[in-house]
Amino acid sequence: MNAVIDLNADLGEGFGVWSLGDDLALLDVVTSANVACGFHAGDPLIIRRTCAAAVDRGVAIGAQVSYRDLAGFGRREMDVDPEELCAEVLYQISALDGIARAMGGEVTYVKPHGALYNRACRDVVQAEAVVAAVADYIPSAGRPLPILTLPGSVLHEIAAGYDVPTVTESFADRAYTPAGTLVSRREPGSVLHDPDEVAARAVRMAREGMVTAVDGTEVRIGARSVCVHGDTPGAVVLAEAVRKALTGAGVTLESFA
Amino acid sequence: MNAVIDLNADLGEGFGVWSLGDDLALLDVVTSANVACGFHAGDPLIIRRTCAAAVDRGVAIGAQVSYRDLAGFGRREMDVDPEELCAEVLYQISALDGIARAMGGEVTYVKPHGALYNRACRDVVQAEAVVAAVADYIPSAGRPLPILTLPGSVLHEIAAGYDVPTVTESFADRAYTPAGTLVSRREPGSVLHDPDEVAARAVRMAREGMVTAVDGTEVRIGARSVCVHGDTPGAVVLAEAVRKALTGAGVTLESFA
Amino acid sequence: MNAVIDLNADLGEGFGVWSLGDDLALLDVVTSANVACGFHAGDPLIIRRTCAAAVDRGVAIGAQVSYRDLAGFGRREMDVDPEELCAEVLYQISALDGIARAMGGEVTYVKPHGALYNRACRDVVQAEAVVAAVADYIPSAGRPLPILTLPGSVLHEIAAGYDVPTVTESFADRAYTPAGTLVSRREPGSVLHDPDEVAARAVRMAREGMVTAVDGTEVRIGARSVCVHGDTPGAVVLAEAVRKALTGAGVTLESFA
Amino acid sequence: MNAVIDLNADLGEGFGVWSLGDDLALLDVVTSANVACGFHAGDPLIIRRTCAAAVDRGVAIGAQVSYRDLAGFGRREMDVDPEELCAEVLYQISALDGIARAMGGEVTYVKPHGALYNRACRDVVQAEAVVAAVADYIPSAGRPLPILTLPGSVLHEIAAGYDVPTVTESFADRAYTPAGTLVSRREPGSVLHDPDEVAARAVRMAREGMVTAVDGTEVRIGARSVCVHGDTPGAVVLAEAVRKALTGAGVTLESFA
Repeated sequence: MNAVIDLNADLGEGFGVWSLGDDLALLDVVTSANVACGFHAGDPLIIRRTCAAAVDRGVAIGAQVSYRDLAGFGRREMDVDPEELCAEVLYQISALDGIARAMGGEVTYVKPHGALYNRACRDVVQAEAVVAAVADYIPSAGRPLPILTLPGSVLHEIAAGYDVPTVTESFADRAYTPAGTLVSRREPGSVLHDPDEVAARAVRMAREGMVTAVDGTEVRIGARSVCVHGDTPGAVVLAEAVRKALTGAGVTLESFA
Repeated sequence: MNAVIDLNADLGEGFGVWSLGDDLALLDVVTSANVACGFHAGDPLIIRRTCAAAVDRGVAIGAQVSYRDLAGFGRREMDVDPEELCAEVLYQISALDGIARAMGGEVTYVKPHGALYNRACRDVVQAEAVVAAVADYIPSAGRPLPILTLPGSVLHEIAAGYDVPTVTESFADRAYTPAGTLVSRREPGSVLHDPDEVAARAVRMAREGMVTAVDGTEVRIGARSVCVHGDTPGAVVLAEAVRKALTGAGVTLESFA
Repeated sequence: MNAVIDLNADLGEGFGVWSLGDDLALLDVVTSANVACGFHAGDPLIIRRTCAAAVDRGVAIGAQVSYRDLAGFGRREMDVDPEELCAEVLYQISALDGIARAMGGEVTYVKPHGALYNRACRDVVQAEAVVAAVADYIPSAGRPLPILTLPGSVLHEIAAGYDVPTVTESFADRAYTPAGTLVSRREPGSVLHDPDEVAARAVRMAREGMVTAVDGTEVRIGARSVCVHGDTPGAVVLAEAVRKALTGAGVTLESFA
Repeated sequence: MNAVIDLNADLGEGFGVWSLGDDLALLDVVTSANVACGFHAGDPLIIRRTCAAAVDRGVAIGAQVSYRDLAGFGRREMDVDPEELCAEVLYQISALDGIARAMGGEVTYVKPHGALYNRACRDVVQAEAVVAAVADYIPSAGRPLPILTLPGSVLHEIAAGYDVPTVTESFADRAYTPAGTLVSRREPGSVLHDPDEVAARAVRMAREGMVTAVDGTEVRIGARSVCVHGDTPGAVVLAEAVRKALTGAGVTLESFA
């Protein structure tokens, strides 16, 4: 077996004097960095440093676009007008890509953050606003950037209609329903914390495209990327465990970009 | 005589529900639009609409970069760390250029706004931060964007050292000292309001590169662009008077970009 | 007949360099000013000037509390955590009351703004967060401030449970359903613009507590205050027409506070 | 000898998802908490929790007022118009006091933060703006709140002219010049990190009102409060060492309020 997988995590999520997570340590583990663009976290200097460090390590840079909500870290759903949301997403991708290119890299994908991710995975109007922004943006390579998203989500389907490519991801540290969706964070046991368990799930996701749901059902969730969280205590330890287990199982870690 | 001049004004300076000035009317008059990038004014939707309207009319788009200060409209000097200021300017140019390109145009120059303009015209450290950001940014055309600035200013000199091109501008509605600098806004008579007088000065600036200073001295202030203000009551009337007088005097209105 | 009515409008809704509506003209018309507290509009200097002008004219000052959303003018619903929303409302009332007292007045009521008003009128969780904040705040007079709200709304009911007083309001320029609720702004004809018609409705609301719904039904909507909008073109003309008609009909204009 | 001293530190300086320092641990050490008011740090929920915890422990609450600058943590000097600065300071004191009173406490003093502290200690215009705001604010007790400041500073002098009381403070972990001013943070050795040394200095400040300057001169800097920093690594350890040394030396720790 010759599995290839990407490992993505949220990065650059400090703001001004405040930091969040250990960006440099995580950049040594992941193959794709979802870099905050200044709307839920991230200021221009943090963005610049994060891009420079990602370029140094050959880690792919993605635009982690969000609602405009520093006070809520982009975690509250907002009824933003779609025309405005589209412009906001375009603004964020542009800002990040310009800085990434100045640092010798470039933005190679887009991943919505937090409440916007959840909303766009089920709400046609907001999904269309995000996809339209990605379709509008003209990267150096000319073709639209891919969106990293949940397989089967509304966002995934809308992107297909706009000829915007998508890359699917799964979550190594999240519990799944038998339908292949994530168990809500409000449910007990929705987030897994044991590094060995999370690492074993990541290996199975990468090699077999399978996960065991909360009720014991075996679910197919084939994905090109596995997401590990970067903003929790112990995030680096967990990410390192996942990486070690994957390489130990003969899985090649490689960005999809 | 075959003079050519550019006419620039600040545009897109609303925010959310609030508007400022009559952007569409001004876009019919000027040849270059200094578009606010979201740090002192301008939100992504306003930026997008302003860029689209500029592209429609063949008006050049410049990045009107500023301190991060919505509450003060970028009019208060701030002791920003140069590394941070550099990243902030790079972020703003990038955000605007990405949107401009999505609308079929592109950013073709940079003009600092308000207090940053004044500070960078005399402060080596902040001037260097602005210039370094412009030097770092990679536009579609490859070469660094020109900075629109006062002839003889520190900003002008620093740019030369970085091989960043500059374009000089003069102010049709501002009083000049015998040294060729602007009379402070705090002085009485520093801002001219009579459309005929302002228009006549603009014509003389364009054709002869000369202006009469407050003490009657004739001063040489040769400039490739003339700035008219967009955010004052009567701004459109004044700009139209300037344009009419220039074309009536046989001066060709043309962007420098 | 000896009817007494209060006339309220939103005020102080500029921000920094941007203004909105003609505050001083409106203050000569209304008896209660819903002053923006800085979260959807209003900065400390605008708040101070608005409070000073209200005190000069004997106009009552209310805290127009909002979601934290300058970019969206508080018009987008947000899934704010109730504990956080409660603290945000308390912060806004406190800030405004401190300034009002320094200007010789005081805050005498609370009125949620925009999307928070709509949400709190139907969502128990957010209504409870708003009411709890009002119940927590200790004004000079000691007793909890009254909340200005729609009769029959969830916000109205929740307040009763907390022993927080309420004052009911009706909208002179909005169409009503037969159930006594407002026709959604998205429906054609939901907002009335003819000053004579709006004024006549205000008089009937004040004298009879009745309004004719869109289907011709006569609906009882007894209210102690009538709201006129301050942020639309022609707002002052319309408010003046309402005031003139009310006084002409022998209705006494008087704050409820 | 029967010395009495207050121990103050900056608290509540997180924002949204970001935290800074260990507030609860520091509250067990200090007698006065300079609580951030939302302009350089602190959001309403953090403010509410910090006030509640301070009230629980009998720690005095001060308004740590700042420039409006979340991105720069209030550490960059800004040329704010004095009328605007005055309104901003009044807004911050009001917001904090309203929340503190709702939690069963109250604001009992004001301490400017960061760049505003430094500027107001030498700039008459900004000092006057701060003092005027404090003079305008009407606390429950009626009399103007005292300002915590450096002895001999411009802020100290201006306050006297406005009949605003002041309380002097010294800095246990900062190097002093022979003139009794603080050595600039840009100088090497300006900040002391050894807990034993800092504690010993605090004891001498409390008991003798003396400190040894960088050149060995003995300087008199009598102060009613000693400031320990809360936002540095090891802040709690250092603060605990200071408290332990002071009580061990028979100094009574007591708020000045």
